[in-house]
Amino acid sequence: MRKILVIGSGKSSSYLIKYLLDKSIEEDLHIIVGDIDIRNAQKLINNHEHGHAITLDVFNHHSRKEAIENADIVVSMLPARYHIEVARDCITLGKNMVTASYVSKEMEDLDTAAKNKGLVFMNEIGVDPGIDHMSAMKVIDSIRAKGGKMILFESFAGGLVAPESDNNLWNYKFTWNPRNVVVAGQGSAAKFIQEGNYKYIPYHRLFRRTEFLEVDGYGRFEAYANRDSLKYQSAYGLDQIKTLYRGTMRRVGFSRAWNIFVQLGMTDDSYTIDDSENMSYRDFVNAFLPYSHTDSVELKFRLSLKIDQDDIVWEKLEELDLFNSNKMVGLKKATPAEILQKILMDSWMLEEHEKDMIVMYHKFGYKLNDKMHQIESTMVTLGEDQTYTAMAKTVGLPVAIATLAILNEKITTPGVQIPITKEVYGPILKELEDFDIIFTEKEVPYLGYNPLNV
Amino acid sequence: MRKILVIGSGKSSSYLIKYLLDKSIEEDLHIIVGDIDIRNAQKLINNHEHGHAITLDVFNHHSRKEAIENADIVVSMLPARYHIEVARDCITLGKNMVTASYVSKEMEDLDTAAKNKGLVFMNEIGVDPGIDHMSAMKVIDSIRAKGGKMILFESFAGGLVAPESDNNLWNYKFTWNPRNVVVAGQGSAAKFIQEGNYKYIPYHRLFRRTEFLEVDGYGRFEAYANRDSLKYQSAYGLDQIKTLYRGTMRRVGFSRAWNIFVQLGMTDDSYTIDDSENMSYRDFVNAFLPYSHTDSVELKFRLSLKIDQDDIVWEKLEELDLFNSNKMVGLKKATPAEILQKILMDSWMLEEHEKDMIVMYHKFGYKLNDKMHQIESTMVTLGEDQTYTAMAKTVGLPVAIATLAILNEKITTPGVQIPITKEVYGPILKELEDFDIIFTEKEVPYLGYNPLNV
Repeated sequence: MRKILVIGSGKSSSYLIKYLLDKSIEEDLHIIVGDIDIRNAQKLINNHEHGHAITLDVFNHHSRKEAIENADIVVSMLPARYHIEVARDCITLGKNMVTASYVSKEMEDLDTAAKNKGLVFMNEIGVDPGIDHMSAMKVIDSIRAKGGKMILFESFAGGLVAPESDNNLWNYKFTWNPRNVVVAGQGSAAKFIQEGNYKYIPYHRLFRRTEFLEVDGYGRFEAYANRDSLKYQSAYGLDQIKTLYRGTMRRVGFSRAWNIFVQLGMTDDSYTIDDSENMSYRDFVNAFLPYSHTDSVELKFRLSLKIDQDDIVWEKLEELDLFNSNKMVGLKKATPAEILQKILMDSWMLEEHEKDMIVMYHKFGYKLNDKMHQIESTMVTLGEDQTYTAMAKTVGLPVAIATLAILNEKITTPGVQIPITKEVYGPILKELEDFDIIFTEKEVPYLGYNPLNV
Repeated sequence: MRKILVIGSGKSSSYLIKYLLDKSIEEDLHIIVGDIDIRNAQKLINNHEHGHAITLDVFNHHSRKEAIENADIVVSMLPARYHIEVARDCITLGKNMVTASYVSKEMEDLDTAAKNKGLVFMNEIGVDPGIDHMSAMKVIDSIRAKGGKMILFESFAGGLVAPESDNNLWNYKFTWNPRNVVVAGQGSAAKFIQEGNYKYIPYHRLFRRTEFLEVDGYGRFEAYANRDSLKYQSAYGLDQIKTLYRGTMRRVGFSRAWNIFVQLGMTDDSYTIDDSENMSYRDFVNAFLPYSHTDSVELKFRLSLKIDQDDIVWEKLEELDLFNSNKMVGLKKATPAEILQKILMDSWMLEEHEKDMIVMYHKFGYKLNDKMHQIESTMVTLGEDQTYTAMAKTVGLPVAIATLAILNEKITTPGVQIPITKEVYGPILKELEDFDIIFTEKEVPYLGYNPLNV
C-alpha cells in the first residue's frame, strides 16, 4: 500500500482528504493525516479503513522526520511559513512534496537539491495560486500553438458568498481568513501594465479604481488591482505583453463602501489604539473624526466623508452597527485593523448551512495573422456547506489530483515548481471538470483598452 | 583661552559661529570649526583671529578624539545620526556637549554616565525642537506658578518663505531639507488628544484636516497635525491635559494642493518607478492615472481627482510644469518622492537674495479659580539672505547661547537633557530677544474646542 502523509487538517483539507480516501481502494493508498490537534484529522478521516490520524507537531524534529520517512509522498497544508522544515526533511529523506502555497525564497533555494535527487516539489497548486495558473496557461499555450502573439492578459479571482446565501447589503461575507481581507492591498502601490505603460495605484486609491466584469448567469462584479500584477510575467512567458493586470473580485458596490474604512484609517495595522479594550464601536469610529462639542458622530462622519444620508453606503455602515455605543471592542492594545475585523466578524460570518463561491475570470488578447482576438474564460464554483466549501474544494482537489499523479509517476519533471506546464495542467484541469470545476471559454471581439477601435 | 569645538559647518552653523566669534574677545574664546570639507568652515570663520578651521572626519576615530580632547566644550551640528560617536568621546574625555537634534535612544543611554561625570549634554536646543520647548515651558511654568491648571496646549511651527520673497501660487519655497518636506507626515497615523479623546489621522487624510491660525501682521496660516503630538506630554508635565496638538504651519491653500500629490501616490518613498530615468514629467504624472486611448493626461487628472479647470489648485499644478513632456526626470531607479522632489526643486528653491521666515504659534488653555483662560504666544523671524537665514538664526543662536552659558557654568545641571527648565530657558529666551527672536504673548477669551461656551 502507498502511504500519503497529509500534514494539517484545517479548513482547506476537507476535499483533499475526501478525494484521496475515495481513491484509496482502487489506487491502493493509505492516508495518514497529521495535525497538532488530532480531532480535526479524525473528523475528516471519519473512521475510513484506508486512513488514520496522528498527532503531529511539525516543530518536533523527531516525530516530523519519522512521519515523513514513513510516507511515499508528503502534502503540507500548513500555513506557508511552516513548510520549509518539512521540505528540508523531504530532500533528506527523498520524498516528493506538494503544497498550495506561494514559493518562498527558502523553498526556491531547494530547487537544485530537489533536481539532484529527482524529486517533484509542486507548489501553488490550490485555487489562487493554482487553478489560476493552470487555466491561464492552458489558453496562453493554445494561442501560442496556433501562432498567436499575446497582447493582453487580465486575471481576476474572488472568494465570495454564494448567491443563495448573499443576504447583506455588502454582498460579502468572510469565506476565508478575515484578517487577509481587512489588510488586503496594503503596502507599496499596486503595479501593473496598461498598453505598454507601467501604472501605480496607492493603497488609499485602490478601491476607487475598480473595473466591472460580467459573468454569465452570475451578473456583474467589480475588481480592484492586486499589489503585484507582474509577479508571473516571466513565468508565463509574457515579457513582451502590452497589458498585464491581476485583480480581486467583489460584488459591485463593495469597494466604494470599503473605501470609507480605508479613508478613515480603520484598516491600518501599523499602530495600536490607546485603551482599545474599553472603547465602544462608536468610540472607535469617533477616534478617526474631529472633535466637536455639538455634532454627533454620524454627522461628523457624513460631513467629513461627504456621504449623503440617502446614499446606500450609509446603510451599509449602519448594517454593521458601527455607531453602536453599547457594543464594546474588548480587545487589548489592538490595531485599527484588528478592531475593524472584530466589528465585521459580527456581521460577515457564514452560518453552518451557508455557502461560499469562488469566481475566476481571465481575459486574453492576442494578435494572429494581423488580426486582434480576445478570449474570455470564466469559472464559478459553489460550496456545499461550511465544511465542504468552494474554497476547500478548489484548493484541495488540485492538490489531491497532483499528489496522486506524482505518486503514479504521471508528473515526473523534478524541481521546485508551479503548475504552468502542460504535463501538469492538462490532466489536472481535465479531472477537475468531473468535480464541476469547469472553465467556460469564449471568443469575443477584441476590446483591449481601445473600445473605439472595435 | 577657552576652546569651543564646533563640528559641522553646514547651513545651520552660520549664526552660531558668528555669535561665538563676536563674543570671543570679551569672553576669551577660541572657536575651532571642524568639517570634512574645510572650505565651509573657513568661509564662516572668515579669517577671524579667534577662530580657525580644521578638516575633521568624524568617522576617523583618532582625529575626532584629538579634536575633542583639545576643546573645553563640543557643539555637534552634524546630522543627528552622527552625534553618538562624538557623545561617547565626550563622556570618555569629560567634555560638555550641545546639539540641536532630537535625543536618540543611544544618546539617552548616556544619561547616567553624563551625570556620574557631572557633564551637561544639552540637546534639542535649536528652533523646533528647541525654541518651541523653551517658549512653551516659560508660559506653562508661569501658569502653574499662579495656581492655574493646564487644560489645552497646541503648538505650531513652520519654516516658510518671507512675505517679500513669497511670489508663487503655493506661497511656499524650500527653506530647509526638501526631502523632509516631500515625505512629511508619512508612517503611522498622526495622533493627538482633543477634549480628552485620542484622535488619529491617516497620512492620506492629513492634509484635509487642517486648522487656521492668524498671526498679527502676517495674516492667516493653516496647520496640519504632526505625527506624534504626545511626544513631550510627560516631559512638559501635561499627563492630565484634555487637548494636546502639535502641527506644522503652511500658508492657506498649500495643504489642499499638496493633498493632490498624496492622493495620486507621488509622495511615496517605498518603491522605485520602472525606467524613471527616461520619463518626462508628464510620463511620471501619467503613471498614476488610468490608461485612456482618447483622453489627455490633463483630462484624466482633473476627472479622477475631481478638479474643476478654474480651481486655483489646477493653476498651482501648472505652475510646477507638471505636465511638461520635454522636461525629463533623469533619475535612475527613483522613488515617486524623489521624482516629485526634483520637480518641486525646479520651482521652489530660494534665490541668493531671497529670505525665509520661521513662524511659531502656541495656544495655552488653563483653569484658574474656576475660570477658563487662554494665552496665545507667537513669534516670527525673518532671514537676511541665503547664508544668514531665519532657520540658521533660530537654530544656531540658542545653541550658541547655551554653549557659552554651559562654559560659564550658568547651566550646570548634569545629564542628557532638553531645554525645559527655567535654569535653561530663562536666560536663553531673554538673550534671544536681543536678536529679535521675540514671543508676543496675549490673553484671549478661552475658546478651547467649545466656541459656543464663550
